[in-house]
Amino acid sequence: MLAWHIQTEPMLVRKGNQVKLKLAVSPNYDLDAAWVRVEPDNEEALKPLKKTNTKFIGFDVYSVTIAINDHQEMTPYAFKLQSGSQVSWLGANGLNLFPPTLDVQFKLLATTQIPDWVPSQVFYQIFPERFCNGDANLSPKQAEYDYLDWGPIIAKEWGSLPEAKVGGIEFYGGDLIGVRQKLDYLQELGITAIYLNPVFESLSNHKYDTVDYFNVDPHFGGNQALIDLTTDVHQRDMRIVLDAVINHTSAAHPWFLKAHQGDPNYRHYYIFDENNYFQSWKGYDTLPVLDYSQADIVDIFYQNENSVLKHWLRPPYNIDGWRMDVIHMLGEGKGATNNLHHIEKMRTAVKTENQQAYFVGEHFFEASRWLQGNAEDAAMNYFGFAFPVWGFLAGKDVNYHDAWINAETLALWMQSARARIAYSLQLGQFNLIDSHDTARFASLVNGDQDKIKLAMTLLLTYPGIPSIYYGDEVGLKGWLDPDCRRTMPWNIEHSEHPIYQHLQQMIRLRKKYKALQYGGFVELYAQGNVFIFARVYKKQLVIVAINRGDACDIRLAPELNEFIVLGWPQAKGIIELTANSSLVLPIELS
Amino acid sequence: MLAWHIQTEPMLVRKGNQVKLKLAVSPNYDLDAAWVRVEPDNEEALKPLKKTNTKFIGFDVYSVTIAINDHQEMTPYAFKLQSGSQVSWLGANGLNLFPPTLDVQFKLLATTQIPDWVPSQVFYQIFPERFCNGDANLSPKQAEYDYLDWGPIIAKEWGSLPEAKVGGIEFYGGDLIGVRQKLDYLQELGITAIYLNPVFESLSNHKYDTVDYFNVDPHFGGNQALIDLTTDVHQRDMRIVLDAVINHTSAAHPWFLKAHQGDPNYRHYYIFDENNYFQSWKGYDTLPVLDYSQADIVDIFYQNENSVLKHWLRPPYNIDGWRMDVIHMLGEGKGATNNLHHIEKMRTAVKTENQQAYFVGEHFFEASRWLQGNAEDAAMNYFGFAFPVWGFLAGKDVNYHDAWINAETLALWMQSARARIAYSLQLGQFNLIDSHDTARFASLVNGDQDKIKLAMTLLLTYPGIPSIYYGDEVGLKGWLDPDCRRTMPWNIEHSEHPIYQHLQQMIRLRKKYKALQYGGFVELYAQGNVFIFARVYKKQLVIVAINRGDACDIRLAPELNEFIVLGWPQAKGIIELTANSSLVLPIELS
Repeated sequence: MLAWHIQTEPMLVRKGNQVKLKLAVSPNYDLDAAWVRVEPDNEEALKPLKKTNTKFIGFDVYSVTIAINDHQEMTPYAFKLQSGSQVSWLGANGLNLFPPTLDVQFKLLATTQIPDWVPSQVFYQIFPERFCNGDANLSPKQAEYDYLDWGPIIAKEWGSLPEAKVGGIEFYGGDLIGVRQKLDYLQELGITAIYLNPVFESLSNHKYDTVDYFNVDPHFGGNQALIDLTTDVHQRDMRIVLDAVINHTSAAHPWFLKAHQGDPNYRHYYIFDENNYFQSWKGYDTLPVLDYSQADIVDIFYQNENSVLKHWLRPPYNIDGWRMDVIHMLGEGKGATNNLHHIEKMRTAVKTENQQAYFVGEHFFEASRWLQGNAEDAAMNYFGFAFPVWGFLAGKDVNYHDAWINAETLALWMQSARARIAYSLQLGQFNLIDSHDTARFASLVNGDQDKIKLAMTLLLTYPGIPSIYYGDEVGLKGWLDPDCRRTMPWNIEHSEHPIYQHLQQMIRLRKKYKALQYGGFVELYAQGNVFIFARVYKKQLVIVAINRGDACDIRLAPELNEFIVLGWPQAKGIIELTANSSLVLPIELS
Repeated sequence: MLAWHIQTEPMLVRKGNQVKLKLAVSPNYDLDAAWVRVEPDNEEALKPLKKTNTKFIGFDVYSVTIAINDHQEMTPYAFKLQSGSQVSWLGANGLNLFPPTLDVQFKLLATTQIPDWVPSQVFYQIFPERFCNGDANLSPKQAEYDYLDWGPIIAKEWGSLPEAKVGGIEFYGGDLIGVRQKLDYLQELGITAIYLNPVFESLSNHKYDTVDYFNVDPHFGGNQALIDLTTDVHQRDMRIVLDAVINHTSAAHPWFLKAHQGDPNYRHYYIFDENNYFQSWKGYDTLPVLDYSQADIVDIFYQNENSVLKHWLRPPYNIDGWRMDVIHMLGEGKGATNNLHHIEKMRTAVKTENQQAYFVGEHFFEASRWLQGNAEDAAMNYFGFAFPVWGFLAGKDVNYHDAWINAETLALWMQSARARIAYSLQLGQFNLIDSHDTARFASLVNGDQDKIKLAMTLLLTYPGIPSIYYGDEVGLKGWLDPDCRRTMPWNIEHSEHPIYQHLQQMIRLRKKYKALQYGGFVELYAQGNVFIFARVYKKQLVIVAINRGDACDIRLAPELNEFIVLGWPQAKGIIELTANSSLVLPIELS
């Protein structure tokens, strides 16, 4: 790594403005000239960089000022480096011997910004039915009602294992009162923000099948419980994000019941064929898909003044953002036609209501298409974080196939995801290691606490927002849905659990060092079992080392000597790492 | 290269259809399972491949059928390969250890197709003023007129060197009558299609500054000369493409003269500020930029029934397509705002007039954005062909900086360009090694005929349409404009020129073997001075080897043994290449 782009804080840019870019080049690099390549009005232009009098972590610093594009949201750029008869290009994918294609060039966005409050958060994801039973009087009773053809619901004892394979009709009694009761607990751990799985009225325990978008489920405490929770959360200077499930409704939603019977006032909400078959999400006939080619649907969900997305952003609820369920699949007619068009409009609706609302899409796969500006602030970062970490530490992929990767691949994979979005957005991606939709990480590694700690270190130090799925802090296990939705074990002493203690310490570090929240990413080493990188913010440097294997001695590339001196002053060029361990070394540069 | 996607002919696809995909896997690859990854409604799905009973060039063949997306124009896909505890992915960028991002997945386009006639063509680019003077009576006379502030035009003698740095006011007398007179010559060489630099009325020699979009320049012979030329061309079963310069006009265009004086009927065609300054192309004040936010401009150039783009596609002209000048810069207001929107509308206008018209954009840089369907058929392939070839054979880049690359980089660069567009479009890209806008390749290599021949071999065997810039067939030299626009040397015997003879032979091979027109690309070797690849079409295989260095013995990877046996049956694993030479080996598979 002979050259890197110094991105040590996100730049606020605007169309027509100028911004200063900085490039760090190793003195070992025999540099004759350097330019930045930009594209005003889509036409290539080269602008020379000038060497400054400063050095940064042993590298010479060059700089240049460029104009932000005014013909489009994005300003892509890359650096061209001439050395003798050879040219190299520095793109967001590293050094190349040919010009980087647009997708891997650096990018600035002129108007799309994540909310100011986002990068400093530590999120905690709660599946409300399984987190804490705050009011036993609200809990669903055995056979209280039938859910369509699945029959009567089942009341189960806290701590027993979930079993229902479909429909989600077994209940343990978790509610929003319980969430509120645990705010002290969350703050003690270091959590600052909550993402709640769906809370609106629904017949299932997961509530991804809504029957009323304007009321919180009574078993969760109804609207008043949400008001009480959000008020308390905000009084603590915490944040809360809800789950919007607006690709489909429940087949038990009154709209659908009427539509299915042919009511012309509702028929067009859904997609029926001449035989009264309807389009459903992935073929689950309890989940009829909404048709966004219909103005009524657009109005109800995002366009109207009282649309669902706007309603809950307002008093007395004041939620801080939306996590958008299966947002990539939403669209006109039976499929995802004009998907991005509607997401852009949703963003506008959300941001018009609250400029500081966080707008996050669920994406199990690469989400770059939705992160090029004017669409999403962030994706749930399965592709760019969770799955590479699974491959490196658990040897599994999204399909639970055996899929070991080493540190080279880990670094390349994560870089491939970062490279395709602007740095400012990288800082807001919603990172996670598991969720209500995956096996728990603890199960993927068979409870190996060292591996869980390594994953937690990465989660709390990598660019983007960390989100901890409830129970992961005490190594809660669980395979796929419904097993990954076990009840939270409150019968053990959390603060004595080694994972809890490690996570609490990592959260402290993340909060203490802005480099971990806002800092640029510099890869230092990625080989075999060992991944070492630095986060850099202004004069603050945090070096992170992850070793998944045996104790080993690492020698960085010679041009990185200054990093070694800073991180391991006694090391004399050799970094000694113990087995299965991580290091986080904060440094203040002089 | 242990696995490759057998794309041996472009597939005709349509929304809702199914297509069969084939994967070739080396028997050396210890494959446990293979899937194709698709995205119906943007959601990942894996479909298993099944091993067939057939082999293809020594590789096992697997196949799977997928549905073409109906929610969008593009159907991206990639292959997942499981081997023991490891997963690999085959994308359009080769084998990866992590899932390929969308930009490097394979792609099918549902409705965007290049014209049927395109892949089999061999183009010849003619700068009309310098190719052949067919009627001396038409030639511009010394001081016949003034071009704005540059003063009187200059008449020069055929064969003398161009000198004028700006404005293009020196004339040699080439015309369309001359082009027509040389059709026999072109056919003898093997040419099947002509791309003419601009021919519409203009005061300059290059005519990129139009004063009348509806009349061919009288010095070129007027409209009748074009009718005669296109008629003759079509009678010979040849094709002809014209140059559309519709981003800007000449400052001498009557519209602009009136607009500049404040005529409200024309003022809005251009972009003036309060001081009567106007937006001009790259600051050249002879080239005022047109404003595509204005309905009048949209109507005149592409929307109206009598729009410029439609007019010349019709009888009696019947041109076969348009090369669109600086198309990436065109847009609303002073810049490229909403560029793609207008290009998509232009495509619709062109294709509505003639479904078989070829729609090519000028792009010096990566053009992927315009090649994702519903926009351009092709780019002038500077980025994906000319510049990598320059780097490998001439050590120069687009800026004429020293920039040597070896065969590894050549292959990666070309692959990076191919990977980002559908295979069907790869076959229609407009490949070239130089043009009226660059130094001539012969000058870049200081007249080294071996290097020119290597470039010609690549041009005629690489995926995409070859285009030969007039004079390159006899090693015509020239540095940047205006030197690259020298008069065609008719005073030598072309057919005896070694480059002419090599090119003629390469054209014969290209026409004889459909693999060179329609075949898939398989990289066989790319290291140091040597680049070897195969084109594969049904049962036809053509192996191409390019050696820019000393004589050498090459050993391919063991899994490519069958290619060695086919191409070099006596080789016993070693391929002997002579210095500075290329080989083209056509093979019919049994």
